[in-house]
Amino acid sequence: MQFSDQLITELKPVWQANHNHPFVKELAAGTLPVSKFKFYMVQDYLYLIDYAKLFALGAAKANDLAVEAKFAELLSETLNTEMALHRQYAQQFDISEAELTNAEPTPTTLSYTNYMLSVAQSGGLDKVLVALLPCMWSYNQIGKQLVGTPGANHPLYANWVEMYSDDDYTALTDWTIGLLNQVAAGKNEFEIKELTNIFLNTTRYEYLFWTMAYDHQTWPTIK
Amino acid sequence: MQFSDQLITELKPVWQANHNHPFVKELAAGTLPVSKFKFYMVQDYLYLIDYAKLFALGAAKANDLAVEAKFAELLSETLNTEMALHRQYAQQFDISEAELTNAEPTPTTLSYTNYMLSVAQSGGLDKVLVALLPCMWSYNQIGKQLVGTPGANHPLYANWVEMYSDDDYTALTDWTIGLLNQVAAGKNEFEIKELTNIFLNTTRYEYLFWTMAYDHQTWPTIK
Amino acid sequence: MQFSDQLITELKPVWQANHNHPFVKELAAGTLPVSKFKFYMVQDYLYLIDYAKLFALGAAKANDLAVEAKFAELLSETLNTEMALHRQYAQQFDISEAELTNAEPTPTTLSYTNYMLSVAQSGGLDKVLVALLPCMWSYNQIGKQLVGTPGANHPLYANWVEMYSDDDYTALTDWTIGLLNQVAAGKNEFEIKELTNIFLNTTRYEYLFWTMAYDHQTWPTIK
Amino acid sequence: MQFSDQLITELKPVWQANHNHPFVKELAAGTLPVSKFKFYMVQDYLYLIDYAKLFALGAAKANDLAVEAKFAELLSETLNTEMALHRQYAQQFDISEAELTNAEPTPTTLSYTNYMLSVAQSGGLDKVLVALLPCMWSYNQIGKQLVGTPGANHPLYANWVEMYSDDDYTALTDWTIGLLNQVAAGKNEFEIKELTNIFLNTTRYEYLFWTMAYDHQTWPTIK
Repeated sequence: MQFSDQLITELKPVWQANHNHPFVKELAAGTLPVSKFKFYMVQDYLYLIDYAKLFALGAAKANDLAVEAKFAELLSETLNTEMALHRQYAQQFDISEAELTNAEPTPTTLSYTNYMLSVAQSGGLDKVLVALLPCMWSYNQIGKQLVGTPGANHPLYANWVEMYSDDDYTALTDWTIGLLNQVAAGKNEFEIKELTNIFLNTTRYEYLFWTMAYDHQTWPTIK
Repeated sequence: MQFSDQLITELKPVWQANHNHPFVKELAAGTLPVSKFKFYMVQDYLYLIDYAKLFALGAAKANDLAVEAKFAELLSETLNTEMALHRQYAQQFDISEAELTNAEPTPTTLSYTNYMLSVAQSGGLDKVLVALLPCMWSYNQIGKQLVGTPGANHPLYANWVEMYSDDDYTALTDWTIGLLNQVAAGKNEFEIKELTNIFLNTTRYEYLFWTMAYDHQTWPTIK
Repeated sequence: MQFSDQLITELKPVWQANHNHPFVKELAAGTLPVSKFKFYMVQDYLYLIDYAKLFALGAAKANDLAVEAKFAELLSETLNTEMALHRQYAQQFDISEAELTNAEPTPTTLSYTNYMLSVAQSGGLDKVLVALLPCMWSYNQIGKQLVGTPGANHPLYANWVEMYSDDDYTALTDWTIGLLNQVAAGKNEFEIKELTNIFLNTTRYEYLFWTMAYDHQTWPTIK
Repeated sequence: MQFSDQLITELKPVWQANHNHPFVKELAAGTLPVSKFKFYMVQDYLYLIDYAKLFALGAAKANDLAVEAKFAELLSETLNTEMALHRQYAQQFDISEAELTNAEPTPTTLSYTNYMLSVAQSGGLDKVLVALLPCMWSYNQIGKQLVGTPGANHPLYANWVEMYSDDDYTALTDWTIGLLNQVAAGKNEFEIKELTNIFLNTTRYEYLFWTMAYDHQTWPTIK
């Protein structure tokens, strides 16, 4: 069994919890309150600024020109194309660019991005990949899961479903999964356990991220 | 004004929130349920294993032999002396070494330590220092604040108060504050804002850490 | 005086030594043996694979979306466009893609790239910038210095002169210099000394790199 | 075959070249000019300040408390004990502490230490170990090789032979080799090739380091 299959088999309850999160279910049903999605969008914008840094670290830690160049492309596309799309999409929700730029990360956004960056900086390409995969892969699976649901025809949410279920995003996800499987081949039990634990934690942070948006999370203390 | 004074002046409400956290107040009063302190101890043990890595990063990023040697000493003392003391102290609470070793970090422990490690790895000595300081400094202040309280005479908690209020710990805290002030001297507004923001976040994580122990935090999803 | 001007004023003899290296002078005169240029090209190709990683680290350490996006663009352009141009240019010298791919770094190439990567990884954006600047800036200055020389009309070397003297490359160099000056503003004496020392060392490695190509450097021991 | 044995079998000519370097042979014969040894000592002092940082990175990247604690101990001993011994030993050669402190690294010292630090920062514990091992292991082998030679009874050099051949240093070397073998177990061909290449390069830098001292290396350009 490929390492990627092993991961979502072994961690099935945690992995599937994201697919069944109230946020996702209401998104599918088209009943998700727009305020919750707006909260999500702003935090997701902040999230992407740091998530892109994982692609940068992938390029920096690559030992193969093709892999380095692919991460470079992903990084540049994310920052120079997708972020602009996110800003346009946000406008449909009356979220201004200033609101995006001045937003402050919630505890969960700050924790999730820095967990990935901490792990990725401390190790090699294997840790970069396993840290960034749960977000990408679960979004692709959830995107596909939502095709054909009311959410996929919702005037505001259809765009989100399209973005994460389309062929390009699927191809990107498959590339990342393939590279992780290649890198993980032959690893000893201790290393597999360590990588599995990172995947588990990032998957858990995905769940906390949906909850954060659903609950409009704030910091408990006043600045 | 020294940078350190500027930090706790500007961030006073967040900084003081830790000193007045229910966990700390009940510790001072000697009324804190032992179960909450035990929960704290186990997580604190896991926390220290990663916190020590900030001393390692301080040594790795030092540009002065004396600073490198001091961090080396702190790192070795923490891992080769203090961890043993923590294990002994834990025995007073019937927490076995196996329980410490096999414990899993809560969301807050994982988030707090990896936030510090992420920031510290990404920058120079300035970021290492400002990331690790809130824990050390607030513990020293809280330790001193608790001297003379019922908690300081409590059969189980006295040891904690002693540990964080004693002269050695105060001297270590002063050394760290002094080094941060030295390193921060002359920094431009942008850098000061960035360092202040790290200090703010780590201070907030301190609060979340007390709350985590007070509330016996668990992960929302089942593994 | 801007920090960048201060650097090349203070380090003038070392800085200018590159402009007057035999390799550069013979390149200008159009008398450089093609074998020396071929040696240079192969090592320069290996050099760029690692040099690009400094752009990746710039993106990873940026604290501003615009800076992160600019580094992303540089990284992707270098790896997805310029490397292909280098391969095409190499064909003019009968250097096959296989020869480029299978080449092994000389001691100087390995030392120079890893010096920059070591420094860049250990610190913040300031160190990334000061490490990568001497290559970029001296190439731009030397490129311009060679405009109008026989080398600029040489059937094989004209391309090189054009590449490093053109407006795009000049604009990139100016952007990098501007960002370094912005980041270095207000730094204390100790930090300025440290950054200056990195610039000095990278400038020295530039000289060693020209010498390496001029002398067809090899490893002293047999594998 | 253990990975460590595989390394020095596969790389035998490069590995053995260090054992037969003129510097080492004349050290064994007791005929090495003191000026060459003095040059070596000063550079070795600078080298150790950075070499110790590899122990710090080992602690920072360890995923096991015992390994983290061992690296912490090595780091602290190196900086808080061995550096003092080096300063005392240097006094026997009329090298003052100021001379050690103010010395500037040669091209080889700067290149060698930063190569190891670059590699170690970019990866996990495996890269830290394979980067730092050739120095430690070849010194232990050479130390033992010199026991019983005139060098081992030389009034100035005996101390060096004793230091690197004694039981403590041998035990440390064995621990490091053992940990590398444990970490490398099961790695795929690509990873083994990458680690082998790091070991090869660091071994080559060892040779360049001996040559640097033997030839009193300087920078080619004037500051």
